[in-house]
Amino acid sequence: MKTTINDSLALHTDLYEINMMKTYWDAGKADQQAVFEVYFRNNPFDSGYAIFAGLERVIQYVQGLKFTEDDIDYLRETQNYPEEFLAYLADYHFDASIRSMEEGEIVFNNEPIMQIKGSLADCTLVETAILNIINYQTLIATKASRIRNVAGDDNLAEFGARRAQEMDAAIWGARAAYIGGFNSTSNVRAGKLFNIPISGTHAHAMVQAYQNDYEAFKAYAASHEKCTFLVDTYDTLRSGVPNAIRVANEMEDKSRFVGVRIDSGDISYLSTRIRKMLDDAGYPDAIIVASNDLDEKTILNLKMQGAKVDAWGVGTQLITAFDQPALGAVYKLCCIEDASGELVPTMKLSSSPDKMTTPGEKQIWRITRKKDGKSEGDYVTGINEDPTHEESIFMFHPTYTYVNKTVRHFNARPLLRTIFDKGELVYDVPAIDDIRDFSREHLDALWEEYRRMLNPEPYPVDLSQQLYDLKMNSIAEIRQRVAEDCKTFDLDEDLNLNFK
Amino acid sequence: MKTTINDSLALHTDLYEINMMKTYWDAGKADQQAVFEVYFRNNPFDSGYAIFAGLERVIQYVQGLKFTEDDIDYLRETQNYPEEFLAYLADYHFDASIRSMEEGEIVFNNEPIMQIKGSLADCTLVETAILNIINYQTLIATKASRIRNVAGDDNLAEFGARRAQEMDAAIWGARAAYIGGFNSTSNVRAGKLFNIPISGTHAHAMVQAYQNDYEAFKAYAASHEKCTFLVDTYDTLRSGVPNAIRVANEMEDKSRFVGVRIDSGDISYLSTRIRKMLDDAGYPDAIIVASNDLDEKTILNLKMQGAKVDAWGVGTQLITAFDQPALGAVYKLCCIEDASGELVPTMKLSSSPDKMTTPGEKQIWRITRKKDGKSEGDYVTGINEDPTHEESIFMFHPTYTYVNKTVRHFNARPLLRTIFDKGELVYDVPAIDDIRDFSREHLDALWEEYRRMLNPEPYPVDLSQQLYDLKMNSIAEIRQRVAEDCKTFDLDEDLNLNFK
Repeated sequence: MKTTINDSLALHTDLYEINMMKTYWDAGKADQQAVFEVYFRNNPFDSGYAIFAGLERVIQYVQGLKFTEDDIDYLRETQNYPEEFLAYLADYHFDASIRSMEEGEIVFNNEPIMQIKGSLADCTLVETAILNIINYQTLIATKASRIRNVAGDDNLAEFGARRAQEMDAAIWGARAAYIGGFNSTSNVRAGKLFNIPISGTHAHAMVQAYQNDYEAFKAYAASHEKCTFLVDTYDTLRSGVPNAIRVANEMEDKSRFVGVRIDSGDISYLSTRIRKMLDDAGYPDAIIVASNDLDEKTILNLKMQGAKVDAWGVGTQLITAFDQPALGAVYKLCCIEDASGELVPTMKLSSSPDKMTTPGEKQIWRITRKKDGKSEGDYVTGINEDPTHEESIFMFHPTYTYVNKTVRHFNARPLLRTIFDKGELVYDVPAIDDIRDFSREHLDALWEEYRRMLNPEPYPVDLSQQLYDLKMNSIAEIRQRVAEDCKTFDLDEDLNLNFK
Repeated sequence: MKTTINDSLALHTDLYEINMMKTYWDAGKADQQAVFEVYFRNNPFDSGYAIFAGLERVIQYVQGLKFTEDDIDYLRETQNYPEEFLAYLADYHFDASIRSMEEGEIVFNNEPIMQIKGSLADCTLVETAILNIINYQTLIATKASRIRNVAGDDNLAEFGARRAQEMDAAIWGARAAYIGGFNSTSNVRAGKLFNIPISGTHAHAMVQAYQNDYEAFKAYAASHEKCTFLVDTYDTLRSGVPNAIRVANEMEDKSRFVGVRIDSGDISYLSTRIRKMLDDAGYPDAIIVASNDLDEKTILNLKMQGAKVDAWGVGTQLITAFDQPALGAVYKLCCIEDASGELVPTMKLSSSPDKMTTPGEKQIWRITRKKDGKSEGDYVTGINEDPTHEESIFMFHPTYTYVNKTVRHFNARPLLRTIFDKGELVYDVPAIDDIRDFSREHLDALWEEYRRMLNPEPYPVDLSQQLYDLKMNSIAEIRQRVAEDCKTFDLDEDLNLNFK
């Protein structure tokens, strides 16, 4: 039970990362320079886009990255590492550069969302934690954004802590939900740590503790300025709502009665009946809060049925990304230092065409129309290309190259920002509300067709001609090299093996 | 960015819990005694059982439960709480008693897996965190157990950190997977914190860094005693496996060649071909490790197809419980102190019959046959009942009461153990390997029909006659009381409201 004792995040990595570090170190390759990039192959939830989140946590992780004495002792006891390598780890510090999308940025599949450039040792050690962080937070920010898209201006409260996948998910998920457009979280710790609004009034258990709606609401009203009563403990329409109104009637200052919450039953039917009861009783401003296994699909349906709900509490479906609980972001090598000390593009072949990576260090440019700021697509270039100097750019689909267009009168915004420069943080972390506003603003620039909940149009993420050519040439070159390498042995048709 | 500064878990709760504490405190009810219990209504993954996990983390949480000065400052700044209440929180300590299933215990839907008995304040504050912990860890231990059931004695490695829902899920999920029967985790920090075996060799990126299978394997072999080579970076059968064999042939001590891992392609086809290549080359003991989006269904299928896999790496599907990423455990009031100071049973009514709770403080007895230790079912009794003194027990289905049996020659093992007694830890936390063995042993006592992956038989969780009668009487009583309470107002057919 030494969980909180001498815990550090340096060991929050897969063992194979440290084993590879050892191989590189033994081979004198630990300082060889490389570039890795993070991207995902498919947008989550069949969404047309994703919202990038997780950078703040990545920054914290990288800044604290140091093997403690306890970490070294553990590796000494369990692994067969020589003292020299353990001493190297004990001395280790992260000196790589990180470029990244900013939190809240609208991002798409098959474009790099973060890039790590540095020694093989640096790049290798951080893979697991970076993916762990980004995969989850981006998933939740995206889910929250989808819910925001259907909820319009309704208040959205994140309620999921009790169903979250352990404690970090509860708090970082609450933060990601806020970035994606939620108004508040129920989790007090998340509120404190991240400066996001918190909300919540009372549970069924409190009504049960008073054995009676009236007594419970009365007690709550005596102890809280603002009151939203949970009305479905015994009988929503026959006891909960009438007693909420009764307690409101007994308040001197009626504005203290904020409204009622329902957590069971048919939300469409109940909210309509409750609305009428509240209006008839003289509380047209009292709000109705609904919760109970809601997601973007149910909320959309309820709204289309005319449910009279002013605020939604969303728990399980959001905090676990229930319909797709993992984003498959991967971490792939795209450049490696060659024998002459030059950083050269490289890529991973695959038998699945969509698993082929794109070589080289890159920049992503968001292309928008000058006249109205609306999106034309993302344009992925080599790091030294700059389309802002061009009169026009030719954008073509990276697979169906005959799907193409020439864009003029455009703005091109570079999306990858430098966060760490050779281990030094050079980025001012924005305030959470600025991140949230930034996200909203850029989402608005996206055409409706890419934001649609169901069957959105695929947003163009195109490669520059230069990058496309590099990719095609690299594929040919690697295939050639592998074929040469295989000549070391004879393989007959049945793959029987004979070494030459 | 003050995440790690002055962080405590006292605020890891929903705001409504603290708001209810305030109401209780204002009303002089904060010390009123109550009993809450944790249970889930459905086994996850349509499984016939679940594996309880999370107790160790709950113990840590409860032991550290203290509002820091920083917590109080945050509440002062954001909530409208008076100083007296803040002083009460600053002085707060947890004095309740907790009874719980032990970690690794086989548990079932609709039986209490944990019970908290103490003041309303104590019981209320801890709800969110306890559910957060138990819901996730029990889910993952159960998923791991299901995978173990189909994997037989094959080695199972947990690989999921990069896809886990944030960092806590990666480490506590690794621990839960070990309890559920996995052999190791890839996450080094989980290994260190929880004393579980870690495993892992190298990734595709290392092969790419050498641009060549042979050079990469050679370098790995030069730096590690035991070698499992990842063979699918370029071409599994034409380059990866032949080069793994070539490097093995060059080893002086052949036992250093553990085997190969494949992470893409058709595992059934590839593993069969690889097996033959390894055997032909004189490595019949070299193992084949497979990974790539595996779960219990795919592993079962691959084994039925005769895949020659000796060890499985399982990531996303396990660590996120992909097919059902949340267990719906709830926390319900079952007893409350009445005006005379007596703790009396209570329950929550619901319009859905399966959401009705069962009143009273309980014990769960696992009934097994004396002759072979095989399971007869769980028998839920009032806390003062003791079936071990009975010659026979009458077990009947709590809904279909005509489904029943009389059991003789039985053993009855009480499942809820006292963990905290009035705030004091009175339980010796077992070593992780003892938890794992305990789980395996008790799972073996369960008939095969309850362990089946698909469509298992429902395991009997029956109420004693005394508890059943209490429940029926409580329902009638509460209905009567609510009906009386509703007489406070006239509700006409359209639910227009007139206060009397």
